[in-house]
Amino acid sequence: MLSKNQIKLITSLQQKKYRNKSNLFIAEGVKCVNEFLNSDFVLEKLFCTRDFKHILNSDKKQEISNTELKKISNYNTPNEVLGLFEIPSEKKVVLDKFTVVLDGINDPGNLGTIIRLCDWFGVSQLICSKDTVDCYNPKVVQSTMGSLNRVSIIYTDIESFISKTSLPVYTAMMRGENIYTTSLPKNAVLVMGNEANGVRESVNKLILNKLTIPKFGDIQLTESLNVATATAILLSEFKRS
Amino acid sequence: MLSKNQIKLITSLQQKKYRNKSNLFIAEGVKCVNEFLNSDFVLEKLFCTRDFKHILNSDKKQEISNTELKKISNYNTPNEVLGLFEIPSEKKVVLDKFTVVLDGINDPGNLGTIIRLCDWFGVSQLICSKDTVDCYNPKVVQSTMGSLNRVSIIYTDIESFISKTSLPVYTAMMRGENIYTTSLPKNAVLVMGNEANGVRESVNKLILNKLTIPKFGDIQLTESLNVATATAILLSEFKRS
Repeated sequence: MLSKNQIKLITSLQQKKYRNKSNLFIAEGVKCVNEFLNSDFVLEKLFCTRDFKHILNSDKKQEISNTELKKISNYNTPNEVLGLFEIPSEKKVVLDKFTVVLDGINDPGNLGTIIRLCDWFGVSQLICSKDTVDCYNPKVVQSTMGSLNRVSIIYTDIESFISKTSLPVYTAMMRGENIYTTSLPKNAVLVMGNEANGVRESVNKLILNKLTIPKFGDIQLTESLNVATATAILLSEFKRS
Repeated sequence: MLSKNQIKLITSLQQKKYRNKSNLFIAEGVKCVNEFLNSDFVLEKLFCTRDFKHILNSDKKQEISNTELKKISNYNTPNEVLGLFEIPSEKKVVLDKFTVVLDGINDPGNLGTIIRLCDWFGVSQLICSKDTVDCYNPKVVQSTMGSLNRVSIIYTDIESFISKTSLPVYTAMMRGENIYTTSLPKNAVLVMGNEANGVRESVNKLILNKLTIPKFGDIQLTESLNVATATAILLSEFKRS
């Protein structure tokens, strides 16, 4: 039986301010929850419609009905389990390893995709401007699953980071060097900007190296690439070299 | 003033079967509608909360109130205009030009991203299995905008297409040739599969060339890449060569 306070707490975690207050985030569904259980994340409480036998500490799990799960779930057809996990403390910024920097990414789907890309390409540090969407947003959690604990995600002053790093710093823009003919270093910082406005001017002026993914379609008409697909192509180019 | 029949027609166009029946689809918002107006698509009717002066044929435009626009819009905060456009007849399949083939893509966002990628990389033909999400789905229309009229999208029997084309056919899978060390042809067919299940077996066995995007992260743990980001990386590799 779910208490009123439990329902209130869980539904409040849709919002960043309550996640920060309670230091908890939500993961849902068997596959996603299992990925978090098999990671370094610390389980606070598991609500499930059938027993999760591999969680031995019975204080941490609570069987609930399907109707109750529907009440606390983000989904119309929830999938057996909803877990509350602790938000870990942020790791320290490392100045000299391959880093992706995000400047004001708004869309949870884009952030989720970029976290998975970092994981795929072995980029272990992702630095986000403070106005980038929260990585513990339920939509980000759901789309990244296990990747969330393999990439160190840090929200900080990105101008300060870019000023301090000794690595060459790159960004993508319409008129830059052709990525296919530029020689790219093994170790670098790649800055990607907001979906509508790109990298803000105060950040952009700190970046020496501007790259362009050449267009092959109709030069005039084609819109810009989505930020997540552009990140995919750029990381692939850095890593293939 | 919107009539009941107009409201009924417009809201029915959320569903594929009614789009096919009436041969119409919806585009919304100033930017998106303008892209369709500046294209080869034929306008059936424009509903707008302010006058769109550049549409001279006044039979084709109808001023409505904000409240009315809210009734027919997909959005909580609709943006001035909703247009109905004719679904054009499908172009003929061309067997010998660079083609992306999609096998059972379900997610409108993924289809939209892949259409924009085709446009960017100058891939003018996209062939979809009949169970791939409809490209006139409002979410696809909204995310592709102008690209929708620059890529020829054809729903057909993809096994038959793959059997008939004289071009080399490629797909991506976990254990294939490293894309960074394989020499790729200028002209080819690239087959991408369903989000959860990949390319179905009956299609896969027709494909000689299997490619892999190498993982740089933790080999065991990283999930597969999202189909749209994988398509981005593969198209970039084909086009850079």
